Amino acid sequence: MEAERSLLYARANRGRFLEELKTFLRFPSVSAQPAHAADVKRCAQWLAEHLQKIGLTVKIVPTARHPLVFATWLKAVGRPTVLIYGHYDVQPPEPLQEWRSPPFEPNVRGEDLFARGACDDKGQMFTHVKALESLLRTQSALPVNVKCLFEGEEEIGSPNLLPFVERNRKALAADAAVVSDTQMLGPGRPAISYAERGTLALELQVRGPRRDLHSGNFGGVAHNPLQALCEMISQLHGEDGRIAIPGIYDRVGKPKGAEREYLSEAGPSDQQILRNAGVKRPWGERGFTLYERLTLRPALTLNGITGGYQGSGGKGIIPAHATAKLSFRLVPDQKPEDVETLFREHIARITPATVTSSVRTVSRANPAVVDPRRPVMRAAASAYGKGFGAAPVFLRSGGTIPVVSAFQHTLKIPTVLMGFALPDDRLHAPNEKFHLPNFFNGVATSIWFLKALGDRP
Amino acid sequence: MEAERSLLYARANRGRFLEELKTFLRFPSVSAQPAHAADVKRCAQWLAEHLQKIGLTVKIVPTARHPLVFATWLKAVGRPTVLIYGHYDVQPPEPLQEWRSPPFEPNVRGEDLFARGACDDKGQMFTHVKALESLLRTQSALPVNVKCLFEGEEEIGSPNLLPFVERNRKALAADAAVVSDTQMLGPGRPAISYAERGTLALELQVRGPRRDLHSGNFGGVAHNPLQALCEMISQLHGEDGRIAIPGIYDRVGKPKGAEREYLSEAGPSDQQILRNAGVKRPWGERGFTLYERLTLRPALTLNGITGGYQGSGGKGIIPAHATAKLSFRLVPDQKPEDVETLFREHIARITPATVTSSVRTVSRANPAVVDPRRPVMRAAASAYGKGFGAAPVFLRSGGTIPVVSAFQHTLKIPTVLMGFALPDDRLHAPNEKFHLPNFFNGVATSIWFLKALGDRP
Repeated sequence: MEAERSLLYARANRGRFLEELKTFLRFPSVSAQPAHAADVKRCAQWLAEHLQKIGLTVKIVPTARHPLVFATWLKAVGRPTVLIYGHYDVQPPEPLQEWRSPPFEPNVRGEDLFARGACDDKGQMFTHVKALESLLRTQSALPVNVKCLFEGEEEIGSPNLLPFVERNRKALAADAAVVSDTQMLGPGRPAISYAERGTLALELQVRGPRRDLHSGNFGGVAHNPLQALCEMISQLHGEDGRIAIPGIYDRVGKPKGAEREYLSEAGPSDQQILRNAGVKRPWGERGFTLYERLTLRPALTLNGITGGYQGSGGKGIIPAHATAKLSFRLVPDQKPEDVETLFREHIARITPATVTSSVRTVSRANPAVVDPRRPVMRAAASAYGKGFGAAPVFLRSGGTIPVVSAFQHTLKIPTVLMGFALPDDRLHAPNEKFHLPNFFNGVATSIWFLKALGDRP
Repeated sequence: MEAERSLLYARANRGRFLEELKTFLRFPSVSAQPAHAADVKRCAQWLAEHLQKIGLTVKIVPTARHPLVFATWLKAVGRPTVLIYGHYDVQPPEPLQEWRSPPFEPNVRGEDLFARGACDDKGQMFTHVKALESLLRTQSALPVNVKCLFEGEEEIGSPNLLPFVERNRKALAADAAVVSDTQMLGPGRPAISYAERGTLALELQVRGPRRDLHSGNFGGVAHNPLQALCEMISQLHGEDGRIAIPGIYDRVGKPKGAEREYLSEAGPSDQQILRNAGVKRPWGERGFTLYERLTLRPALTLNGITGGYQGSGGKGIIPAHATAKLSFRLVPDQKPEDVETLFREHIARITPATVTSSVRTVSRANPAVVDPRRPVMRAAASAYGKGFGAAPVFLRSGGTIPVVSAFQHTLKIPTVLMGFALPDDRLHAPNEKFHLPNFFNGVATSIWFLKALGDRP
């Protein structure tokens, strides 16, 4: 099998591929928001029909919340099997007023396609879909057996995917998995992630008076739960930038000297990270470079606070309650369950006697590491070299893809994190975008990758 | 003139008075929210027509934002003039889901009328309107000259009323003012407030990265402005419950021993205040009773925070900015302008170098005190005795009515704060109510008060 015809097909059909991606992006498949449940479902249906049209055998698997789309092509007898994972759900688009074009009306400006999910992850997963189409249309066959597992709950922590993987080890059996949901270093500078941080997302609620109180009639005598929440949050980090929860670093491994050295050469510099973040001064745990803080060290981030009056002007109240959304990023060998226990104990300790607090767990995911020396990683590296004209560097990622750890521990297969996102693609933020050259080079890279896997002895 | 016929009229028309109050309450005259500007205007028009029907001469005075309604009856030659102040605007009704019946669909349950503004201040100001009607319908005259000044901007700090008073000293000239916008001690336990705290409402914004950041890709390297805001807010109060802004207590007078003694006998006990607040444990400045903290001491209250993701589930972001709404309650001789300067200086000092902050002033009002020994205060006390069958106590209030200080300093007249609210009427909160016996006894008290003023030698 030679790849050229498939690559030419992909090149000739770029315009249509882009239009199809736009259609995919118009579904507001926001998994976190119950109001969008029907949109998530319609998006799954569209995706399933699309995969069927390309020539795969497709099944929509309902779950307790949002469906999985499972599609296979298993006619490459004697060849390896690759499991392609992606997610068609997206982050909430809020704050809406900060979008230059509406989040679910895809808009091309310059070389970028703007929409919620353009990059995370609809655009990136679509590179593989279009690679499969290009191969099937030009060769009538794929160089490997393929199983596509596309979920609708990644942005809410994959609550139903992990049990599904557990129950369907046989159906999902493969030699390796590939996931495109991570970053490159910059345009033309591809990267393969060999490690992901885990996550633990929580909600912390503080309650005070039974109802909102008039701040004139009660200001100065009743502890304000919103103020108490702020006071508690200010006790979650120390002056040194470290997370101030006792025991939280107990299981965090000391980074090895050789890896620190490699990452300091291969990874982004402090200056690059600050520029990507759009901030002037760094913050965080002393004694580590910014890239180490992002990948080798755990982080605790305050994602949002809701409390009291938020409209125009003022309102003279002591609110009855206030809620914070928080999430940890965890590194090997931290277990989300253990960190949760430490967090709950700490919150119980620092809750003032004048208010009450409660903690709710929103999602959990384990960290994961894949050895970069594995053959599948080398196949990916060679594919990037051909697809982007540049060899990728192997990097650690600061993000989390919950399924990677499940593939590792349940299916016993390595996962290649073949990212096509740029550092300034505004993942999770307003004006998310996908760099179109990365979309098209991504399709080519996926074609080369699948071919390399099939050629493997 | 004898009051009995007017009182009988008021009693006979209770049902209609209640229906009219409900009509008044159906206007969502939320002054803080620009979306409700037209509703505020329609409410002013309804009120003006209503006052005209009763027999007053009415003018709607447009301002830069919400109109004033000014109504007069000046035919009591040789008699004193009383200025009746009230406000027809209301606090925002949010959070809507916590209302048992919709805020702008007045609903009677038991002896209480539930609606936003039922008590603060539409219901309370309406007692005087119905007293005027009862007197005019039964006596064809009022015992005193009356000027009604009803504004639509009290809940946003009366920005246009104070300049109006300044410019119209002559038109507003009177011997005394009466305002019903304060609390009684409990059912059947009337109170006259002889002091109000001032207020200073502010917005504090903290900005970090230029856009929301993915918490996986940036969690641990960029200071989170929402976290920084919490850290700054935690530095606004000390362990001792005092406001931790240097200089803030410099102009706060030492409470006099005699007044402290009087207030500890006449005012609510710690236990009563905690019960009214619906909290188990007190909080605040040590060395003072709760009632003293509420009236003789300044307070700083956090009214709301907006920052980051607030929807269902989680969202892995570092928000780009966060905003807190805060308000001070000030006591003599604190000046809002001075406190604002101290606050801005403190914020500049405690803003970490990793973020930027800005402060916006929302409203300012001076504190006010009226000598309880003035004749108009004694006339009010005697009216309460007849209207409620119980002599009122003279108390300090923790709240703020911006115009009281303007009446004192610009018009040089005392203001009687003749409150009809109960401590559990949920002012500013969901399920605000007005105790209907207080509405009807309030009408009678106003009739007796106007008569007493007219009888004065």
